[in-house]
Amino acid sequence: MNKIKIGIVGYGNLGRGAELAISHAPDMELAAVFTRRDPASLHILTENAKVYSMDALACMQGKIDVMILCGGSATDLPEQGPAVAKLYNTIDSFDTHAKIPEYFAAVDEAAKNSKHISIISVGWDPGLFSLNRLYAESILPNGENYTFWGKGVSQGHSDAIRRVPGVKNAIQYTVPIEKALEAVRSGAHPQLTTRQKHLRECYVVAEEGADKAQIEHAIKTMPNYFDEYDTVVHFISEEELHRNHSKMPHGGFVLRSGTTGDGNNKHIIEYSLKLDSNPEFTSSVLVAYARAAYRMAQNGECGAKTVFDIAPAMLSPKDSADLRKELL
Amino acid sequence: MNKIKIGIVGYGNLGRGAELAISHAPDMELAAVFTRRDPASLHILTENAKVYSMDALACMQGKIDVMILCGGSATDLPEQGPAVAKLYNTIDSFDTHAKIPEYFAAVDEAAKNSKHISIISVGWDPGLFSLNRLYAESILPNGENYTFWGKGVSQGHSDAIRRVPGVKNAIQYTVPIEKALEAVRSGAHPQLTTRQKHLRECYVVAEEGADKAQIEHAIKTMPNYFDEYDTVVHFISEEELHRNHSKMPHGGFVLRSGTTGDGNNKHIIEYSLKLDSNPEFTSSVLVAYARAAYRMAQNGECGAKTVFDIAPAMLSPKDSADLRKELL
Repeated sequence: MNKIKIGIVGYGNLGRGAELAISHAPDMELAAVFTRRDPASLHILTENAKVYSMDALACMQGKIDVMILCGGSATDLPEQGPAVAKLYNTIDSFDTHAKIPEYFAAVDEAAKNSKHISIISVGWDPGLFSLNRLYAESILPNGENYTFWGKGVSQGHSDAIRRVPGVKNAIQYTVPIEKALEAVRSGAHPQLTTRQKHLRECYVVAEEGADKAQIEHAIKTMPNYFDEYDTVVHFISEEELHRNHSKMPHGGFVLRSGTTGDGNNKHIIEYSLKLDSNPEFTSSVLVAYARAAYRMAQNGECGAKTVFDIAPAMLSPKDSADLRKELL
Repeated sequence: MNKIKIGIVGYGNLGRGAELAISHAPDMELAAVFTRRDPASLHILTENAKVYSMDALACMQGKIDVMILCGGSATDLPEQGPAVAKLYNTIDSFDTHAKIPEYFAAVDEAAKNSKHISIISVGWDPGLFSLNRLYAESILPNGENYTFWGKGVSQGHSDAIRRVPGVKNAIQYTVPIEKALEAVRSGAHPQLTTRQKHLRECYVVAEEGADKAQIEHAIKTMPNYFDEYDTVVHFISEEELHRNHSKMPHGGFVLRSGTTGDGNNKHIIEYSLKLDSNPEFTSSVLVAYARAAYRMAQNGECGAKTVFDIAPAMLSPKDSADLRKELL
């Protein structure tokens, strides 16, 4: 069997996770990694894969079936998404919700012109959570969707704390509030404020001699990031931060609370994830959708797609008859 | 806008649920109901829909876009599925898991010959639970799927109890065992026996003067239905049965417990349903997939399909740009 040849663009946490996920896929192989660093300095796990500079991106055209873009949504993907779609089929995890329409349009134009498939915004949110919002809303049109995140590390909020004067290092967990979750599960259709849904828990390493009260005040009153939430600040040692907070767990909940008939029958649909490693799980989703991109390209399809456009069977290495027999 | 014209074949609990779900769909209308009973005796809710005898099934060809087959899987669907697929696009909830390959083949042949689309085995299991098994397995190939049902009424088990001598009426609830669910959620990958996963709880109305101990023994030792389970039997009055047990709740859980990377990072994906009315929810799923069948038929596709073959966006009345903006 010819294996699907995958390329990885960007070898950070997500890129390394993608490499691991590819190694567990029976029908795929990693062909090349593209990096901004010096290619000679990069040590990857896959023996036969090549490492190239980002400048040499075009060099594997015709030799890579799907490129997995593992850059960030803030600055990498807005540029890389359309650029790489001119050369290859692509998958990415663009997750700036508000800018998705604009990003979709840019990638769609590039992919249609070059006759490639590009599946954007793949991961768990956007991604698996989006799928669950869509399925649930389509089945129960009378109802409401609720999304809760966590318990998990928010890189954006952790970075924001690290910028506070006197802070040496920090990590922030987003924590869903159990009471709010229970209210949704009860079918009560609660209207929940930002503060009622999530708590922000911060573990902070202060610089020697820094004013901890002042740091705590600066964090709790920080606009957009913390001021609308109940925030808990714990000061800990650098050693404790590394020992207890070096994993990147995450997860969350998507619920739909809806009714059928005359409105008397209530139904709750709940989807949840509890993840030890956010980047390893996200990259596992990317790899499954890379399989779909390959198949759609084989079928002659092109343009930008999202998880909404992909038939679930496309994600599995099993054929349709086996899927019906084993999983239906 | 031209509304999608739906027909319902069989007007039991599922058929009535489908009619209610159609009334909440902005882009659909019920055109006709087909029944085995005397059409004049049937009182349906939709003012402008027609009621026909099952014998007149062919009379609405060209006037119905999709037929929702609301018969049972034991005897109705094996015959109706292929027969109606010769005349119309169809949706059904065929749920005899072991016979799905055979049923798929029969419907596929009929639908391909007549150039119709037939989506089989739509509902929540098979259906939404199947989707979750497939998505989760594709993303976490190293892991295990677990399905729990309930708490909910099993019609098959309730019927089996009613056949026990001395039983006047009965209802049986399948109850997932919380301890087993928690073991799965912990990531411990437990091997669970039938008895460890589900409890069977029976509410029984005995005939006047019947030997209750004998009834209880007959139930608990019934092969296939109860002998492999811990079974609890409560004797209650007919009045209490009607007062407290006349709804048809159901639900359940699909979990995947898997690992990524070197196996050290554990992930739990959990999907659950808590349904006040099994038939109203199931028919809501059927109606959403009827929209997909209509669209696929418009695209010129034909043959038998399952939920695995349907891109999620097909289920929603919203267009792709709105879906990306609102739900992605």
